Parts: sequence; C-alpha cells; structure tokens
Amino acid sequence: MNIASLGEFGLIGRIAERVSTKDGVRCGIGDDAAALEPAAGSVQLVTSDMLLEGVHFDLAYTPPELLGRKSLAVNLSDMAAMGGKARWFLLSLGLPAATDVTFLDRFVSGMLEMAGLYGVALVGGDTCASKSGLVISITLIGEQLPNRVVYRSGAKPGDLICVTGTLGDSALGLAELRQGKRDGVAVARHLDPVPRCSEGLMLAEAGIPSAMIDLSDGLLADLGHILEGSGAGARFEISKIPCSPHFSEHAAKLGADPLPLALSGGEDYELLFTAAPECWPDIEKLFAGAPSQVTVIGEITAAGGIQAVLPSGERYLPDSEGFRHF
Amino acid sequence: MNIASLGEFGLIGRIAERVSTKDGVRCGIGDDAAALEPAAGSVQLVTSDMLLEGVHFDLAYTPPELLGRKSLAVNLSDMAAMGGKARWFLLSLGLPAATDVTFLDRFVSGMLEMAGLYGVALVGGDTCASKSGLVISITLIGEQLPNRVVYRSGAKPGDLICVTGTLGDSALGLAELRQGKRDGVAVARHLDPVPRCSEGLMLAEAGIPSAMIDLSDGLLADLGHILEGSGAGARFEISKIPCSPHFSEHAAKLGADPLPLALSGGEDYELLFTAAPECWPDIEKLFAGAPSQVTVIGEITAAGGIQAVLPSGERYLPDSEGFRHF
Repeated sequence: MNIASLGEFGLIGRIAERVSTKDGVRCGIGDDAAALEPAAGSVQLVTSDMLLEGVHFDLAYTPPELLGRKSLAVNLSDMAAMGGKARWFLLSLGLPAATDVTFLDRFVSGMLEMAGLYGVALVGGDTCASKSGLVISITLIGEQLPNRVVYRSGAKPGDLICVTGTLGDSALGLAELRQGKRDGVAVARHLDPVPRCSEGLMLAEAGIPSAMIDLSDGLLADLGHILEGSGAGARFEISKIPCSPHFSEHAAKLGADPLPLALSGGEDYELLFTAAPECWPDIEKLFAGAPSQVTVIGEITAAGGIQAVLPSGERYLPDSEGFRHF
Repeated sequence: MNIASLGEFGLIGRIAERVSTKDGVRCGIGDDAAALEPAAGSVQLVTSDMLLEGVHFDLAYTPPELLGRKSLAVNLSDMAAMGGKARWFLLSLGLPAATDVTFLDRFVSGMLEMAGLYGVALVGGDTCASKSGLVISITLIGEQLPNRVVYRSGAKPGDLICVTGTLGDSALGLAELRQGKRDGVAVARHLDPVPRCSEGLMLAEAGIPSAMIDLSDGLLADLGHILEGSGAGARFEISKIPCSPHFSEHAAKLGADPLPLALSGGEDYELLFTAAPECWPDIEKLFAGAPSQVTVIGEITAAGGIQAVLPSGERYLPDSEGFRHF
C-alpha cells in the first residue's frame, strides 16, 4: 500500500497513534499548533534541520529506520551543543505519493525509537505530497536555565580545546558506502550517529564550557564558527586529533588522505568545546562515567585564525575547510 | 549572482543582517539553537508548515515577495486559530544552487515585512542546497495563557458556527491564475492571504470560542476536523456562507460551480469558530473594530456529521470535501 491510498489524515493518524503522551504536552498532534508547558525559569532552545533526498541522504544505502534515527539525531546534537535538555519535536514530511507505507512505518519506528532513548516527544508537524523526493524537516525544542546555556561566543585565549569521541569515522563511512561497502564501524557512524546529549548536558550543568558546538561541518569549519563567534584564534596539534582504531586502519586502505577526512569530513556529531585549563580535572571526572571519551587537542589564542600544527612542527594548510552546501 | 557563489554562510549572513533584535530573544540566528525567553505562566504554541515548489506554489505566477509573505502567513493563521500571540519563527530553506540572489532578497523582504507587521522575529532555521526546486519549512512559536488557548475539541451542541471574512476568493484566484489572469481581488487573496491574528487573539482573550480552526483545507474539511475533535455534528445554511461581491460576480463567469469553491476550495485562511449563542452580542461588539467581518452560518448539533442545507431545504451533497495531498 502506498501513501496516496492512505491519504493525508490516514498518514497523520498512523503516526499519531504510535506516539505516547509525554511530560509537558498539553496538546500534541492533531490541532493547529502544539501546546507545550515550559519549565518555569528556563530558556527555550529551538533548532531546525532540513534533510533532502539526494543531498543529505541516499535511499540506495540508507535503511528507513536509520534515516528516521539520524534525522532526529542531528537535531539532538544541536541541542547537546547548547547544553540543553531536549523535550519536544515537530516533524514535517514531504513524501512522494508512491512512497510505500512500509517505508513510512520503518522510518517512524526508527525516529520514535530515538525519541524514546532521548526522552523527547513528537508533538506536531506537517505532511504533504512531494513531487521530487523525500523531504524531512525537524524542529526540536529543549530547555536549560539561562546561566547554563552554552553559546559559540564565549571562548577565551588560554582555554583548552576539547573534543568528544573520535573524528573522521563518518566521512570514512560515507566514502566506504560510495564504494559499495554496507557495514562496519565507519558505515555505522555515518548512517547512525550518536548525539552527545548526556555529555553536552553534564558539561553545561557543571558550568564548564566557555563555548560549544557540534561537529557537523568538520573540525576546521566548526572550530572556525567558535572563533568567529568569540573573536579569537586557535592552535591545535594534528597528532592529538582522536581517531578510532578502525579509522587509522581503513582510511589509508581506502586510498584516501586520512587528514582531510578527520579535519573536514563532517557529520561526526561529536562536541567541540572550550574550557578554562583549571576545569580539566573536573572534565576528566565527568567523562569517567560518560559514553564517550574526551581529548584536549589545543588551545584558544588571542588571534591568528586556526593554526593546525603537524608533528614536524610545520603548519598544516588544508585544501578545504569543510562541507559546503553551495 | 546566484546562491552558489554566495555560499551557505554568505547566505545566512545576508538574511541575518536584515533581522532586527526582538523581545525575548537571548540568542537568534548564528548558534546551534535559538535561545528564547517565554512569558512566565504561558503555554508555548508551536506550529510548522512546509511549502514545496510545484505542490504549494508555482513560481511562474508567484512573485518572490508574496511567496515570502504567504509562507509566514499560513503559519500565523495556525497560531491565530489557537488564540495565540505569535512571537518567533525559524525558517528552513532548500534552495537550488542556481537560485538568483535577487530572488532570495525579494523572498526575504516579503517575509520580514510580514514578520514586522505581526511582531514576530526570525530567530533561526537551516539552509541547504536542493536538487529539486525550492523547499520552505517554517516553524512558528507563540504563546497564550493556559486557560485562553482554543482547541478544536470544545464545540458543544447548540454552539453557533461562525466564520470571519469571506470564503472562496482564494480558490477562485487560483483558478484565475491558472487561466492566465495575474491581478484582481481573488488573485490577491490567493497569493497574499491575510492571517486573522488580531481576530483570533481578541476572541481567545475574551474567552469566547469553544473551538477554533483556520480554513486552510476548505470549510467542509475544516469543520469536519472540529466535529471530529469535539465528537459533534453540524448544520449550516449554504445561503449564509459569506462571499465577496467579487466572488459572486466572477465565479460563475469563470464557468466554475461557485459552491465547491466556497465550501471546499481551501486556502481561505479565515477563522472558523464555535461559541455559545449567548456570546453573540460580545462577538458582534468585538468585530465592530476588527479588520474582518464575522458571520454565523449554522450551529453545532449532537451528531449527524455535516448537514449543509440548500435554500430549497434540501441537503447539499458535495463531490469533494477539500484539498487532498495524496
């Protein structure tokens, strides 16, 4: 059965019946707007990401469940980067009329599974016919106390530059997928990224990061955003970039230069944050119980753009700074 | 110059520099999420609408400024239907790389003009390349006191069924546009709808409507949503449907049956609300100073679906109930 025979309201009903009610939802799917109850004294954090077929994902190698998971994960990652607690989301879908209902069900299953894991509720959105591929737009709403929200603009000279997890796996996975590989650590990192929600939240609630961003465009580009926001420069050592054993082994095999993958490949969905050096013991303590590791790769400087230093002591000059949409 | 030569961050900067700061915006465009300060004690109302080229709009006859205005207007209309005060919005844009910057500038001008008129601030969103036409997704956030929010579910037998403005003009305008006409009252109603924000807000704040919805899918379909939400039926008289003089004159000329246009044409963006009969004097008083008229077309019944009564006393049986996406 395809979407066309289900009809718009059949489609909405099919999604709505799978959503369980959540905290703070006075009215969810099925009215002109959702009615939500924010926590008293909190700032509301709102982020949107749009994913287009043929641009952000390729259905030839993306299982619908993972597409559902990833569509929400990329928004959760933005929320993590603000230090926010994600609460609710809206899903707008443009669907080709020939879309099979099984595809929709699997997509929604993945998304709602991810929503359950991170404690967020689907509260509304929009559905419409698309004449040109699948269109996904998600808006995620979260909250945090005003003095605990972390922006891109607070990095200060002398601050440590820290990253969670490992970099480059996702870009390697995409390259592998394009070469026909369908499994492995890197492919999983690309198709099913893990947003660093607990890490972002615990850092923010401990008041540690002076600035934070999620690594979606690649380390060089996203560090650049922090520097631009903070009016500062940065110096880091290439040898300190955390890479997975899988990455170190397979990137070279692929015939690709591993450095651009790790520095500019994008879609790592790790957190990049800066913090005063005296915070380091607290950071180590926090990450002792965290799902991901944390690594110091360099420090914020007063100016001078980004200096990426090779083991030889020379400055690394990248060809590209990150994914560019246009 | 096209979007590709501007680049993603050039594009975001070009939009951001035209946005003036607004109330309650702690952080707007340019971070991972917007940080907003809700009014204490309010419920947050959140609505999303997606507009796809070739489905919701045709660039052959839609000036970019009006597309910008309408994209926001349809969201403002949803907010009006909840009785909410619109405050902030996020704009996600999928743009073909060849899009001319002039098109973007004109689109943004129209949208920000509309935003200024209704006191809402652009606070974030997403931009990406689209390989298949223009994609617009807007999320609008507003607020209202919990006991003043109006849902679809409160209509009770005996309540009056009221509509603002006139119906059918937009559908007539669309038919005219498709026949090559480019101006006139109906074309303007289709390309540049006026959301009934002040009407929705004043009704809600006076505590008058038992249920409310905006007429986007057509009177029959949208009244159906209220009845479904409220577990009730409705009876109304076809002769009482408010139509503009332009509509009465031109619908027949067009060779179209005017009744389906007024009942099921959709995109009127008027408000349909129900209210206890004893509220009528207050409703009349409120609308004495309002931009639009208000008309009682019938009443809510205990059950029986929708009975649309013709002047002959016979029941009108529509071919179609409203716009269907699939």
